[in-house]
Amino acid sequence: MHDSVMGKWLNNAWYVAAWADEIADGPIERTIIEQRVVLWRMERGGYGAVSAFCSHRRLSLANGRVEGDRIQCGYHGLEFAPDGRCINVPCQASVPPGADIRGYPVAERWGLVWIWMGDPAAADPATIVDVAHWGSADWGYNRGAAMVYDCHYLLIADNLLDPSHVTWVHRTSFGGTSGETEPMRIREAPTGFTVSRWTTDVPVAPFYRDLVPFTGNADRLQQYEVRYPALAVIKAVFVPANEGGDDAPANPRAFLMDSYNFITPETAGRSRYYWFQMRNVRPDDADLSIAMSAAVLSAFSEDLAVLNEVQRGMDTATGPYISIATDAGPLRFRNRLERLIEAEKSR
Amino acid sequence: MHDSVMGKWLNNAWYVAAWADEIADGPIERTIIEQRVVLWRMERGGYGAVSAFCSHRRLSLANGRVEGDRIQCGYHGLEFAPDGRCINVPCQASVPPGADIRGYPVAERWGLVWIWMGDPAAADPATIVDVAHWGSADWGYNRGAAMVYDCHYLLIADNLLDPSHVTWVHRTSFGGTSGETEPMRIREAPTGFTVSRWTTDVPVAPFYRDLVPFTGNADRLQQYEVRYPALAVIKAVFVPANEGGDDAPANPRAFLMDSYNFITPETAGRSRYYWFQMRNVRPDDADLSIAMSAAVLSAFSEDLAVLNEVQRGMDTATGPYISIATDAGPLRFRNRLERLIEAEKSR
Amino acid sequence: MHDSVMGKWLNNAWYVAAWADEIADGPIERTIIEQRVVLWRMERGGYGAVSAFCSHRRLSLANGRVEGDRIQCGYHGLEFAPDGRCINVPCQASVPPGADIRGYPVAERWGLVWIWMGDPAAADPATIVDVAHWGSADWGYNRGAAMVYDCHYLLIADNLLDPSHVTWVHRTSFGGTSGETEPMRIREAPTGFTVSRWTTDVPVAPFYRDLVPFTGNADRLQQYEVRYPALAVIKAVFVPANEGGDDAPANPRAFLMDSYNFITPETAGRSRYYWFQMRNVRPDDADLSIAMSAAVLSAFSEDLAVLNEVQRGMDTATGPYISIATDAGPLRFRNRLERLIEAEKSR
Repeated sequence: MHDSVMGKWLNNAWYVAAWADEIADGPIERTIIEQRVVLWRMERGGYGAVSAFCSHRRLSLANGRVEGDRIQCGYHGLEFAPDGRCINVPCQASVPPGADIRGYPVAERWGLVWIWMGDPAAADPATIVDVAHWGSADWGYNRGAAMVYDCHYLLIADNLLDPSHVTWVHRTSFGGTSGETEPMRIREAPTGFTVSRWTTDVPVAPFYRDLVPFTGNADRLQQYEVRYPALAVIKAVFVPANEGGDDAPANPRAFLMDSYNFITPETAGRSRYYWFQMRNVRPDDADLSIAMSAAVLSAFSEDLAVLNEVQRGMDTATGPYISIATDAGPLRFRNRLERLIEAEKSR
Repeated sequence: MHDSVMGKWLNNAWYVAAWADEIADGPIERTIIEQRVVLWRMERGGYGAVSAFCSHRRLSLANGRVEGDRIQCGYHGLEFAPDGRCINVPCQASVPPGADIRGYPVAERWGLVWIWMGDPAAADPATIVDVAHWGSADWGYNRGAAMVYDCHYLLIADNLLDPSHVTWVHRTSFGGTSGETEPMRIREAPTGFTVSRWTTDVPVAPFYRDLVPFTGNADRLQQYEVRYPALAVIKAVFVPANEGGDDAPANPRAFLMDSYNFITPETAGRSRYYWFQMRNVRPDDADLSIAMSAAVLSAFSEDLAVLNEVQRGMDTATGPYISIATDAGPLRFRNRLERLIEAEKSR
Repeated sequence: MHDSVMGKWLNNAWYVAAWADEIADGPIERTIIEQRVVLWRMERGGYGAVSAFCSHRRLSLANGRVEGDRIQCGYHGLEFAPDGRCINVPCQASVPPGADIRGYPVAERWGLVWIWMGDPAAADPATIVDVAHWGSADWGYNRGAAMVYDCHYLLIADNLLDPSHVTWVHRTSFGGTSGETEPMRIREAPTGFTVSRWTTDVPVAPFYRDLVPFTGNADRLQQYEVRYPALAVIKAVFVPANEGGDDAPANPRAFLMDSYNFITPETAGRSRYYWFQMRNVRPDDADLSIAMSAAVLSAFSEDLAVLNEVQRGMDTATGPYISIATDAGPLRFRNRLERLIEAEKSR
């Protein structure tokens, strides 16, 4: 495997720091690409994000309070603006040198709070991934809490770039019985890779059985777009058997589900996984949304169990390990990502 | 900050090892300035203290039994006198060389068992800090169990030498609303530092409200005496407004509370905190004693939460951090303490 | 003590990997002399054992499924034969080089699954220790679950080679009051050492009181045979007082109990302990078997508590420690074991 990229981070990227509602009640601390940050909701709206520890005694500012736009330290009352500047030190007339800390650009989009870990001048919220059909009355939405994986984020990206795992890991959920021999098509874009395949005339896999608005066998599209460094948009399409294919016209009986997956590396051994789904059926059915979130959580927990164990194997075993045919997508992804990281460093 | 002292220990000092009643039922093991010791109550009274591990197979003698004055190992029955000499090895005629372990001087005072970690010849129980009014029928007494802080003991000492933290950390207990701008007076003695201030004509802080035997605003003395390496006697005085000051005569309406705080370093990242209070009101009111202990525990838990987090910040963050005006006392204390430790080494 | 042997492993040996019934429901992972292995029961009977981690992505094969004789990885479906050869890689035509993993010889005997950690050519199940009276209608049997000790296996072997510890560790179970001064007889064999002693005309120790088929004092044999690297057969004999001795004839009133103890090192700080007992009284008394297992577990838990604490002492304390007279057996055992290990290396 292409392991050298696993010790490096892409800085110039928007990472999901939290669901917006996780910050509603006070400041929170997060670890993102090995950096501790504190985020807070400003009284006038919007968010601040700074490096986590007060410049005086290193108390995490998550133990402090929001005062207007600022975060105030819970030990001696030092106050910091969202850009990290120290504005006030109680019991003395002026702010001493060295009191400022790092500030991070923040943006709220799709119910999530995003943080930019690289050069602030390069932070452009318009580059945050688009979510099709957001707010559309014809599409339903469901989400889950953030999941914590005890593994490197690229193990999760590998998994998303390798749909063949579905056969073994998701035997009773996403998996079918006939998919494992279909070849994958791989397309490259500047933002990442897309792997996809049509499987034709197969029974609908258990997870989707109650969602698909037709009976009998289906043609099934699995499409996994994974963007650097670790964000996946997964499109599932089911149409009646023999009506599918990349060039087939829009199908009124198609079931469409877009799954958005945002992976935030905390450290080399721990990641957070934020996800939601959009679907083109029964948009207002709240019970269905709850059931879908539960089913997704259940299936993703199968990935989590396997990937945490893979991480344990990587941490424990010694000597080389091999790559196989289904690693083609992950290997190309890692290769390109490492080039991006190297380019960022040399800038 | 003056950090170099944080990796060094003062040996020639009495440290609190335990409440006397913690040793009543059998030997206990404690870690004090990174040394493991076992303490036991001898059958004839008094205490023994030796290095924790049997010289044979290193079973902690806390797993053994008291036999007369001696501690007997729970594995093969080796017996050690309070000075650490091995007196008996079962199944053989004589005690082999190398069987002795280190003994430590011990003294019981103020309901606490103290251990001397330095040169035994220099151990003088008369140098243990005095407790005014001990046993007086006019003074009440309350105490709590030992608290375990996951931080360096000097972070606790810093806190005791810096009353300004009360405003931010003890917002709803010891804190008032007007104290933060009063200057601190710092006095030095051979045993440590005393910082104090009178705050005049202020409302009585929540913690003291039901204790003070007068109504209306008060003049308040906060006096923190911190002795090397980490022992604090805190005096609180409340008198009616405009009757206070260092030179004011004894005031029959004064409320006086002395708080004794003994911090025992276990390791560089863990400390034990023993405390009790003496008060000049309602000495026999057992309910009040219980209520006071609960209130003190609650307030000290606010310190504990902040200081454990400061330790985490110190362990996690990199790069420099700054000092501010309120660090004057802590900085001088650390400086002098380091000189004491260096002098001890060169002796 | 003879410590140098503690960092070395004897490879050419049968180690207990598990109770057979622990593997009945699916593959399990075990750590044995620092090697992770996965064991499974084949559909046609018998067991497979291979190094734990898949050669592709290092998922432990304990997360996989048994397919016929093979173990199938739970991530991408790679299949391994019991000898470690990779037989199938899905989604591609052939098995790539480097896909094979290590296989281990396995044997089932005495209800236990044994694994050979050395040269497969040298694996001979006939060398597994014999169990006298196995299956005899005149002998009862009882067993317990495997116990996990957080200590080096040689600390357990020490203990088994040193019956003097009974006096101090098993004060209220196996211990008597008069045994500690009797000398031990030590005999050496190619497979290990046997220490034994007859204690004459003593009260029956609490553990055995309800088992011995006579009243009054007894002559008691304690015999501990410990084989390399860490397997003990302990024989207890009680006969009426003055009827014992190595040369005494078979005694119809004798109570005999054989205790089998198999210690499997996981790492230098963790061991698994499998045990069962055989007795010559009330063979079909199931309640007695249950009571005996409970009593043995209780007494062995006394050893476990002490030995885990000894390990902690070894990990914590610095400087030398001493040997005493009762260490003679353990020291000779360690010395011979180290020679065996060295001989194995030079082969």
